[in-house]
Amino acid sequence: MSAVDEVLERNRDYAAAFAQGDAPRAPTLPLVVLTCIDARSQPARFLGLGVGEAHVVRNAGGRATDDALRSIIVSTQLLGTRECMVIHHTDCGMETFTNEGFRARLKAETGASADDLDFMPFTDLEASAQDDVRTIRANPLMPRDLEVSAWIYDVRTGTLTEVPVPD
Amino acid sequence: MSAVDEVLERNRDYAAAFAQGDAPRAPTLPLVVLTCIDARSQPARFLGLGVGEAHVVRNAGGRATDDALRSIIVSTQLLGTRECMVIHHTDCGMETFTNEGFRARLKAETGASADDLDFMPFTDLEASAQDDVRTIRANPLMPRDLEVSAWIYDVRTGTLTEVPVPD
Repeated sequence: MSAVDEVLERNRDYAAAFAQGDAPRAPTLPLVVLTCIDARSQPARFLGLGVGEAHVVRNAGGRATDDALRSIIVSTQLLGTRECMVIHHTDCGMETFTNEGFRARLKAETGASADDLDFMPFTDLEASAQDDVRTIRANPLMPRDLEVSAWIYDVRTGTLTEVPVPD
Repeated sequence: MSAVDEVLERNRDYAAAFAQGDAPRAPTLPLVVLTCIDARSQPARFLGLGVGEAHVVRNAGGRATDDALRSIIVSTQLLGTRECMVIHHTDCGMETFTNEGFRARLKAETGASADDLDFMPFTDLEASAQDDVRTIRANPLMPRDLEVSAWIYDVRTGTLTEVPVPD
């Protein structure tokens, strides 16, 4: 059975029990989370988010890329969120490679060049989260009253620890 | 109480019950999902994803942006996923504005110019999902055996419907 078939079967159970079809479009908590795509880090579960409560933006590393900024601007300025948690996590895949090494691997696998791509790996987990908070805070299109904070999620314990980011 | 304080309290309950600290870094289903940040659309729940099972990439609209492609390349080529579901959803905020109108609103709110930004709104939900599938399929850095499919998640019923995307 394919992975898609497997999750479709689970969706049928979910939909059969689904009873929250009237949640409004704007999140009921004024919260937007930016975090990694990692399979062990599931923000809806580890933050206990109910249907309709918060926006979640996810990319490799949970980085404040231009596209993540686009999503956070839509979240804040179109749909009213005013608190943003940047959550990186322990044992992240983004700490396991370099751009140079990954580009060589892609060239070998596909024949195509990735020389112009930055995959945004990092070596310092706390510094990466702090950098991403500063990038969001510095963006002139964000609401002036947006509160942005940095966190590390521990995939072994399920706990969150704040990383201070002085203004 | 702030939204952050609220979800931290929920995280304490989650962490207290957490018992899955040994999941491997690579997803145990070979699945990567690309979907929207919408608060009503929670892929971990509506696909029944357990901790460690699948990667989830999320941005405003669930669009195949350059940053989403970066994440999907990391997911597939670094961590072995081979099935990709692009899931857009009904009642999406990205159908409610135009670039022009949103840029004017941002200018009025912040004084800053967003004239060079494409927020990627769309008017045709199925076509946007099909376009994004084609963008991923056409990327030369993806594995040749990657299966990419398009889906619409109905936020009122919790159901998924496939949108065919001929090669």
